[in-house]
Amino acid sequence: MRKQKSVKESYVRMTELVLPNDTNTLHNLMGGRMMHWMDIVSAIAAQKHSNRIVVTASVDNVSFKESIRLGNVITLEAQVTRSFSTSMEVHITVWAEDIPSGTKVKSNEAYFTFVALDENGKAVAVPEAIPENEEEKEKFAGALRRRQLRLILGGRMKPADANELKAIFELED
Amino acid sequence: MRKQKSVKESYVRMTELVLPNDTNTLHNLMGGRMMHWMDIVSAIAAQKHSNRIVVTASVDNVSFKESIRLGNVITLEAQVTRSFSTSMEVHITVWAEDIPSGTKVKSNEAYFTFVALDENGKAVAVPEAIPENEEEKEKFAGALRRRQLRLILGGRMKPADANELKAIFELED
Amino acid sequence: MRKQKSVKESYVRMTELVLPNDTNTLHNLMGGRMMHWMDIVSAIAAQKHSNRIVVTASVDNVSFKESIRLGNVITLEAQVTRSFSTSMEVHITVWAEDIPSGTKVKSNEAYFTFVALDENGKAVAVPEAIPENEEEKEKFAGALRRRQLRLILGGRMKPADANELKAIFELED
Amino acid sequence: MRKQKSVKESYVRMTELVLPNDTNTLHNLMGGRMMHWMDIVSAIAAQKHSNRIVVTASVDNVSFKESIRLGNVITLEAQVTRSFSTSMEVHITVWAEDIPSGTKVKSNEAYFTFVALDENGKAVAVPEAIPENEEEKEKFAGALRRRQLRLILGGRMKPADANELKAIFELED
Amino acid sequence: MRKQKSVKESYVRMTELVLPNDTNTLHNLMGGRMMHWMDIVSAIAAQKHSNRIVVTASVDNVSFKESIRLGNVITLEAQVTRSFSTSMEVHITVWAEDIPSGTKVKSNEAYFTFVALDENGKAVAVPEAIPENEEEKEKFAGALRRRQLRLILGGRMKPADANELKAIFELED
Amino acid sequence: MRKQKSVKESYVRMTELVLPNDTNTLHNLMGGRMMHWMDIVSAIAAQKHSNRIVVTASVDNVSFKESIRLGNVITLEAQVTRSFSTSMEVHITVWAEDIPSGTKVKSNEAYFTFVALDENGKAVAVPEAIPENEEEKEKFAGALRRRQLRLILGGRMKPADANELKAIFELED
Repeated sequence: MRKQKSVKESYVRMTELVLPNDTNTLHNLMGGRMMHWMDIVSAIAAQKHSNRIVVTASVDNVSFKESIRLGNVITLEAQVTRSFSTSMEVHITVWAEDIPSGTKVKSNEAYFTFVALDENGKAVAVPEAIPENEEEKEKFAGALRRRQLRLILGGRMKPADANELKAIFELED
Repeated sequence: MRKQKSVKESYVRMTELVLPNDTNTLHNLMGGRMMHWMDIVSAIAAQKHSNRIVVTASVDNVSFKESIRLGNVITLEAQVTRSFSTSMEVHITVWAEDIPSGTKVKSNEAYFTFVALDENGKAVAVPEAIPENEEEKEKFAGALRRRQLRLILGGRMKPADANELKAIFELED
Repeated sequence: MRKQKSVKESYVRMTELVLPNDTNTLHNLMGGRMMHWMDIVSAIAAQKHSNRIVVTASVDNVSFKESIRLGNVITLEAQVTRSFSTSMEVHITVWAEDIPSGTKVKSNEAYFTFVALDENGKAVAVPEAIPENEEEKEKFAGALRRRQLRLILGGRMKPADANELKAIFELED
Repeated sequence: MRKQKSVKESYVRMTELVLPNDTNTLHNLMGGRMMHWMDIVSAIAAQKHSNRIVVTASVDNVSFKESIRLGNVITLEAQVTRSFSTSMEVHITVWAEDIPSGTKVKSNEAYFTFVALDENGKAVAVPEAIPENEEEKEKFAGALRRRQLRLILGGRMKPADANELKAIFELED
Repeated sequence: MRKQKSVKESYVRMTELVLPNDTNTLHNLMGGRMMHWMDIVSAIAAQKHSNRIVVTASVDNVSFKESIRLGNVITLEAQVTRSFSTSMEVHITVWAEDIPSGTKVKSNEAYFTFVALDENGKAVAVPEAIPENEEEKEKFAGALRRRQLRLILGGRMKPADANELKAIFELED
Repeated sequence: MRKQKSVKESYVRMTELVLPNDTNTLHNLMGGRMMHWMDIVSAIAAQKHSNRIVVTASVDNVSFKESIRLGNVITLEAQVTRSFSTSMEVHITVWAEDIPSGTKVKSNEAYFTFVALDENGKAVAVPEAIPENEEEKEKFAGALRRRQLRLILGGRMKPADANELKAIFELED
């Protein structure tokens, strides 16, 4: 039988300081540096769930609403939401803190997907991910819909077959 | 009247060598490093279109199908597809080349969006982006649909209002 | 009256992945890279306590017992133990995890001291740090003894005046 | 018989330029970056003495008295002071120079300890280190006392057994 | 018979953004960072011509006339000019662009030479490089003269034997 | 009267460890990384002579004869050879050491030229550089010839006017 692990066990928290080379000439954090940190924190969460080396399979839409400044402290939290046969979806929340002024804002949220690899680089089965609290269960349920969107956007599923996703549009009608 | 610029004028090509620190312990390029390069090349394309400092506003779904190895040469091409009042969508294509074996594959495609800023960091109007050939016109037309998807995923538009996007699902019925 | 803050409010957790450039030719993490991370995580804890920019004033003796390997995940936890007029002592614990083999060991503990600076770079008063649980109270008490040792080692106190520290030697007699 | 080498043969001088990413938002060098450089220069000195790969075993108390600025030139000098069976103590002196203003100050001194490893990563015997001039002989003699302090601080020696170290306190009585 | 390849097939274009750590305290790009980029772009051109790992054999005189600023976009173009038995000369042109002000200048030109290596690190034969247009033919012809200058400067040819090179001086007489 | 300084006062020694990211996939140091280090060490020598911020004006021909490996220790020595009105020529010698095997070879020699700048970025006069021993006097004398070669290669002097340089060819006739 497939091994089961609580999604909570994959939780990772990472803290980064925005240094000069991470910023543009207006001293704002560049989006690509943020994506780099998001990828590392979520890869570690996927590693913790699977006890395997992992590779990024996809990055879902990320939006950047807040401007993050040189010297800010960035906190990234990542946790697996659901696992499929050899892949795992990870949810990431990012907070940006300006310590001297005492302000802290949630700056981004994102979903990254990873595939677990064995030592020869082949995809390998991962444990089942078990959600426990309400928030975890909601993210677990939404994972199917996000997966359909990824398959459509990646050209590997026809929109007409995406029943979970179509429901979003119908619900509003 | 608003200034017009051909989308072609924003074209940028960037080449990177995959170094040890860009890879995991299986010597595969980490996805976050790739996102970092994508962000830089597309920010430069948006800068060229707007002659302004720009900040990343959003990153669309990116999927990683090919495994890219230590020592590979990565070529990234970016070009603005369409501009809105103060923002620009940029399309990025990534090629990975293993030179000793002579293989070259298209590894990723993505859309990043940028906002142009003036010297005080305020959003500022950008020139109209004019597509010329067939491929450019197709990407220009699709930009509206992708924009609706971004607004829905960012929680700023109701799915029911996304007429361009809904068409995808209806076409298939 | 001087502001008071619970030491708990300064808690920071940081996660790092050991990359090739962090290691020597036997693929062991270099001590200096670890010190660099320890300095960043503890500086952030001191910033959180003081809401100020801080500079490192001293690093206490650190010993490296465990060999940490390429690909390991490093977790650093930092928390202020006690504040003096313009300075703060921070305690750091470091864990090294080899995820594929499922092993995790406490690899280091250390105390770093920071001085808070105002925007002109002058030392500035910091809030009083209040310990709450047993472990925090013990570290708070020990901070005086460690401070005497630092002053002696830095040539700024005579050993004969270090009453707190001399007690260690006398207790054993 | 054990090979002998003059401590002088291990002498290393390293020069570094303080770049933007090495500094905080007040443009002061971060302590962790300095520790990183100290570790590299002293590891090279220990390698030169032992002709082996080495790993950091401990870092003694370091204090940071001078504020070092962006653009300063840092000179680090390292030399083995004494060797034990498989380990070596290295003394490091750091100078910070502001070239346009022509000022140069000694900013830090520290002792780092390294263990020599064979190609399988096992500790291996190192040559005896022979001091020649007065300063080298004094550092050689003090190495025992510093070693006792390290063992006590690392929880591996009882204060009552540290005869060399206790002498410091008694001398002042 | 020796394989032939058009010099055009080796063409590479690379784009870099000048970040804070690439600059001195006056915010000018440091020459060494530029040389680093020139080496990478020209090594890739030599790899493309030879389908081999390559190592830098020599760098010809480079002069830096333009001051390049933080935030500038650097475009480097490299193309093989001529191949010898196991080595290749590569020509590099560098452009610096200040996008907000809309200025773009040619900042440097240089010739780097590379040797192709097999998987054991031994020098290995490379294809013949065929120039096609006028500019390529001119650079192909000049390669002999530059090679003589390199051999003289490297102490491996007597000036009296450098017939191609001597012609420069005689022509002017 | 123009200030005079012994060339010896500008002497700088720098030590670097070859890390994974400095090497190609055969674990050889990349030439561009070496050029980057050469530029930093010689810029510091020029700063010491002029007590000014400096920018690289030119890099003379450099050849790479030795293959330098991952883990090697690189020692770079730089010293001003001669100054002109606002510029200085610096000579650099590079040694590569494989410490476990006890081998050390001189790997490169080069001449870099720098211009001194005032705080507004304008070229500014530098002290006269006085050679003292034989080797320094020889390099001082050769500086004129190298300067003519740089001017010719940079297109700023006609070969026929390069009397110092022409002498090399005539001597051999």
